[in-house]
Amino acid sequence: MLNIAVLGCGRIGRMHADNIAAHPDAALAGVYDIHAPAADEVSQKLEVKNFASAEEIMASKEVDAVLIATSTATHADLIEAAVAVGKPILCEKPIDLSLDRVNLCAQRIAGSDVPIMLGFVRRFDPGHRAVRNAIAEGKLGDLRQVIISSRDPAIAPDAYIEASGGIFRDMTIHDFDMARFQTGEDIAEVFATGSRFVAPALMERCGDYDTISVILRTVSGKQVLINNSREAAYGHDQRVEAFGGAGMAISENRRNHMATVHTAAGTNLGAPLQHFFIDRYAEAFANEIGAFVTAVENKAQPEVGFEDGRQALIIAEAAFKSIAEGRAVKVEEIA
Amino acid sequence: MLNIAVLGCGRIGRMHADNIAAHPDAALAGVYDIHAPAADEVSQKLEVKNFASAEEIMASKEVDAVLIATSTATHADLIEAAVAVGKPILCEKPIDLSLDRVNLCAQRIAGSDVPIMLGFVRRFDPGHRAVRNAIAEGKLGDLRQVIISSRDPAIAPDAYIEASGGIFRDMTIHDFDMARFQTGEDIAEVFATGSRFVAPALMERCGDYDTISVILRTVSGKQVLINNSREAAYGHDQRVEAFGGAGMAISENRRNHMATVHTAAGTNLGAPLQHFFIDRYAEAFANEIGAFVTAVENKAQPEVGFEDGRQALIIAEAAFKSIAEGRAVKVEEIA
Amino acid sequence: MLNIAVLGCGRIGRMHADNIAAHPDAALAGVYDIHAPAADEVSQKLEVKNFASAEEIMASKEVDAVLIATSTATHADLIEAAVAVGKPILCEKPIDLSLDRVNLCAQRIAGSDVPIMLGFVRRFDPGHRAVRNAIAEGKLGDLRQVIISSRDPAIAPDAYIEASGGIFRDMTIHDFDMARFQTGEDIAEVFATGSRFVAPALMERCGDYDTISVILRTVSGKQVLINNSREAAYGHDQRVEAFGGAGMAISENRRNHMATVHTAAGTNLGAPLQHFFIDRYAEAFANEIGAFVTAVENKAQPEVGFEDGRQALIIAEAAFKSIAEGRAVKVEEIA
Amino acid sequence: MLNIAVLGCGRIGRMHADNIAAHPDAALAGVYDIHAPAADEVSQKLEVKNFASAEEIMASKEVDAVLIATSTATHADLIEAAVAVGKPILCEKPIDLSLDRVNLCAQRIAGSDVPIMLGFVRRFDPGHRAVRNAIAEGKLGDLRQVIISSRDPAIAPDAYIEASGGIFRDMTIHDFDMARFQTGEDIAEVFATGSRFVAPALMERCGDYDTISVILRTVSGKQVLINNSREAAYGHDQRVEAFGGAGMAISENRRNHMATVHTAAGTNLGAPLQHFFIDRYAEAFANEIGAFVTAVENKAQPEVGFEDGRQALIIAEAAFKSIAEGRAVKVEEIA
Repeated sequence: MLNIAVLGCGRIGRMHADNIAAHPDAALAGVYDIHAPAADEVSQKLEVKNFASAEEIMASKEVDAVLIATSTATHADLIEAAVAVGKPILCEKPIDLSLDRVNLCAQRIAGSDVPIMLGFVRRFDPGHRAVRNAIAEGKLGDLRQVIISSRDPAIAPDAYIEASGGIFRDMTIHDFDMARFQTGEDIAEVFATGSRFVAPALMERCGDYDTISVILRTVSGKQVLINNSREAAYGHDQRVEAFGGAGMAISENRRNHMATVHTAAGTNLGAPLQHFFIDRYAEAFANEIGAFVTAVENKAQPEVGFEDGRQALIIAEAAFKSIAEGRAVKVEEIA
Repeated sequence: MLNIAVLGCGRIGRMHADNIAAHPDAALAGVYDIHAPAADEVSQKLEVKNFASAEEIMASKEVDAVLIATSTATHADLIEAAVAVGKPILCEKPIDLSLDRVNLCAQRIAGSDVPIMLGFVRRFDPGHRAVRNAIAEGKLGDLRQVIISSRDPAIAPDAYIEASGGIFRDMTIHDFDMARFQTGEDIAEVFATGSRFVAPALMERCGDYDTISVILRTVSGKQVLINNSREAAYGHDQRVEAFGGAGMAISENRRNHMATVHTAAGTNLGAPLQHFFIDRYAEAFANEIGAFVTAVENKAQPEVGFEDGRQALIIAEAAFKSIAEGRAVKVEEIA
Repeated sequence: MLNIAVLGCGRIGRMHADNIAAHPDAALAGVYDIHAPAADEVSQKLEVKNFASAEEIMASKEVDAVLIATSTATHADLIEAAVAVGKPILCEKPIDLSLDRVNLCAQRIAGSDVPIMLGFVRRFDPGHRAVRNAIAEGKLGDLRQVIISSRDPAIAPDAYIEASGGIFRDMTIHDFDMARFQTGEDIAEVFATGSRFVAPALMERCGDYDTISVILRTVSGKQVLINNSREAAYGHDQRVEAFGGAGMAISENRRNHMATVHTAAGTNLGAPLQHFFIDRYAEAFANEIGAFVTAVENKAQPEVGFEDGRQALIIAEAAFKSIAEGRAVKVEEIA
Repeated sequence: MLNIAVLGCGRIGRMHADNIAAHPDAALAGVYDIHAPAADEVSQKLEVKNFASAEEIMASKEVDAVLIATSTATHADLIEAAVAVGKPILCEKPIDLSLDRVNLCAQRIAGSDVPIMLGFVRRFDPGHRAVRNAIAEGKLGDLRQVIISSRDPAIAPDAYIEASGGIFRDMTIHDFDMARFQTGEDIAEVFATGSRFVAPALMERCGDYDTISVILRTVSGKQVLINNSREAAYGHDQRVEAFGGAGMAISENRRNHMATVHTAAGTNLGAPLQHFFIDRYAEAFANEIGAFVTAVENKAQPEVGFEDGRQALIIAEAAFKSIAEGRAVKVEEIA
């Protein structure tokens, strides 16, 4: 039984707490949130300890591992603290908005073998993983192109956007990681373009974009096309396509049920796309906890780790630079 | 908070126990099984009381309601016992294999207003319900035909089949109820035909069939076509179609994910059909508990009750008689 | 080059004339219609001879084969006439509405080896044939059930219905043949039920039904479920499903294109079902001419012949008898 | 009746000749090919005149309009010749591989009102057009992104590739036109990347690419992502997606039929993708002839004309320049 404490009891932290409690080989060792009432609610509902501070969690003998779901600015500190006490870490993305801070953190934890897993949850989606499996099993032959479409159902509040580090660090970062996951390679070059269609004034103010297209080239020359939008009237659109010399695989959108209605007005798929990412990726989040528990139990590094988080952030920086300069930016210019 | 005790800790009872524990407005008050180790396992895992007998549950002040998932032969007795102490009941189908026993039970509980819900779980499947909603909302116009395909992935063990009461009482009973649910009407007439393809010797021995087709007519003349098989090599096949004057709706099969693989050999839907009914109807089982809790909280009769269970059994008897006599049998000949 | 004359220049005759003209190994030798202007139009458009009578066609040395698309009552006479002069025949279904007349025709042409093909066009649909191929190639294992759904988009004019011989002889006859095509067996037993939903007064007057369900049993015990409606608000619904010990195959409806539209109101398949049977089965009609030409060139009997037409009519008679008597009718009671 | 002569009797010319012959308001006035036997075959099969030269066609009073399907290098000359004699033109793409030659042609025909239609056939595909219609009808709100996937089933022979002008001028040119068709705008900026996966040695020799990804920006800032491959093991892959503020539409691939086969090994879509572009776009080619005939009859300019051909070529040049310089190239740098 792996006793995991959850730091941060917002929407994502609470969901992780539920998944840990439901996992047969894990137990929720307690929770903490800087905003005490949030932690109170979870600790009461799930009947677990409400820790007074992150420090108390790090020091507790009842805590085997930590899940970090606090605000982004605290991630690197908490990773360093957990590594210092040898507690395995599952940390929500991103590690930090600043690549310098991420690099400093990397330096500080260098040499440690404490398992660190980054919360790139989409790697654990059954559909996206089926595409990766098709590649890995050779069904698609040599991989040539990957196409990733990610559109959020609705834009987050202004305050969230303003603090997000921009679309590439906050949203596309998942797709940058998906590109590395599907191709199994590092990215060599980034070309990006962005538009302001959803919230032009806000985006102008933040120097940010709400609708973007990106082409990545991997080190071996594979092409990855990514498109993102902060808003999709028809729901949470999440698709991944891989194309190779012997075939193609697509992870299409999912629906709550498969009932269709046929009338003189046409044929309607009865169920809308799921709107909320926690619903869309419910299985993926549960699988992610499972993968973390398994890795820790096997004393193995999780399949998605600190360096994956760092690489995705580097690509995000390259994307902003590409827009600014209207050219393909080599990742080595950033790293 | 509704405290529900579960009687019967087999595969279905355990699943119900988990769903009760996970429901925000319900709590698992304890479990019981005539085979003590089965109950021990659940009571330990979920940290709830292990009752010594069904009687103890009926007498307990800590138990607000009961879920009956014991063997079929005990259902009617337990229903009568729970009604006697005023505890709301969610009972797995069928009420009994004998219509006489069901009628006796009906007589004994007559006049009681204790909520009794029958476990026709498929009514709570989001897809099948979306079809019913399309009918109820008038999208399909006047309903004319319903087509129900139910095929189990693999035949149950011989002992199960021998004690099942035959395919119509054990398996098609779900479809008979689905016919009444979708049409919103009672059945007037039944024609059935059966074959022995899957396990001919066993079926011969039991006077049973493993592959059947049935046509029902409702009291207003709507037609319902049902087909069943005890075996489907490709998975658990569960489809419901409703056809009316203004349109048609189909609840199609569901898959674990929506990834497809395209090669020179063709296009393959990546995910197989779910094989196990508890997976296929996972949401439906959870919704069923929800509907029961809501009905009890509102002091209302659940939407699927004792009489629904009785009607489905009557149709099953009519189906066996139809095969025996090679003619359409009126339900009133049975009831 | 096979020179084929078309008798009957109605909607179907004209379509066949176009397909013959377009076939690389066939030529349209001329046309005839009792209503001269209909034949004039086709002969002028396609620049072919307008024969003065059926007799002239039968006597013409420029005519190698005949396609009979005249009114049903003339089919048997024309078949006999063509057999008498040794001209291969492609005849629209049904041979005649009267089984006695069909039997007499059978007697009169007995012993002839003139190729006679019946226009059960659906056998030549690529989708329905793919289902048959899956059976024939053993992909589905031993065949157990076939489900056929056929719904016309709109009911024909009263005069057509009144002269049609009833739904089983006019519409379901295609499905009876499809049942024999897919199972590769003769039918042993028929149970039918009918309702009057679309045009109750007309159906009452004709002793006919507009909405029917039928269960057939083949000689080896395979089950076939058929449902028909004279009206389907959402278009021409044509589906065939085959289920066997190793798998299942379905020929689903076709659409003019595969564009989908996704909005907040849901997902809509952009193209409606095809409404007109000549559009829906356009490829099948062309394939049918091809199969006829090939059979004649190879001096072989076509794969669907006179006896297939007779068997389908026998099943239709059994279906009417089944409704009248409320019981399963053995085909041998009719034949 | 519009009498159209076909210049060039290769695979595409023959297909156009058939479509003209089948069109109710058009007639095939004759054919010509520099390789006489090719023209002989068509003229004999379709029983039309075999012209001795292009000049004879231009001079003929029996020819109302011309369809140019000769080799690319002759297109501009033939356009100029037809304009000179006032004969409406339907010309296969591209106008010429050299933008200078296209510009010269534009200069020479300036001021003429002879209808000129460019053979961007995909605009006439029912599915791709349904996407455009969804945009035009406002169903998708303000358009934001377009995603075009075009993959050929197999690479053309070396000699074809060597003379093709490169992938952007030969293959992507269709997608560049599709981008302008769907967005209804001119393109302002092009970023392209290319790889050599299919035929590396050939591509190296030609300075060409067989697998490309492109991002276009329209003048108003809409984004278009294009991906192409000269080879797709699974068939001719042709998809177009449009995404706007109110919704999304996709034109998916088409299949010959809709039969599916379900076994323990999974679910297979029975029909492969169509492999040959003439099959895939059969309806589009027929619609294209129809649009040309209608435009000429109405003395209107066709909806896709000379300038569309020129614009697509300019984008192709910008794409090659973008790869060479690793940056986004403004279209105005080329034009």
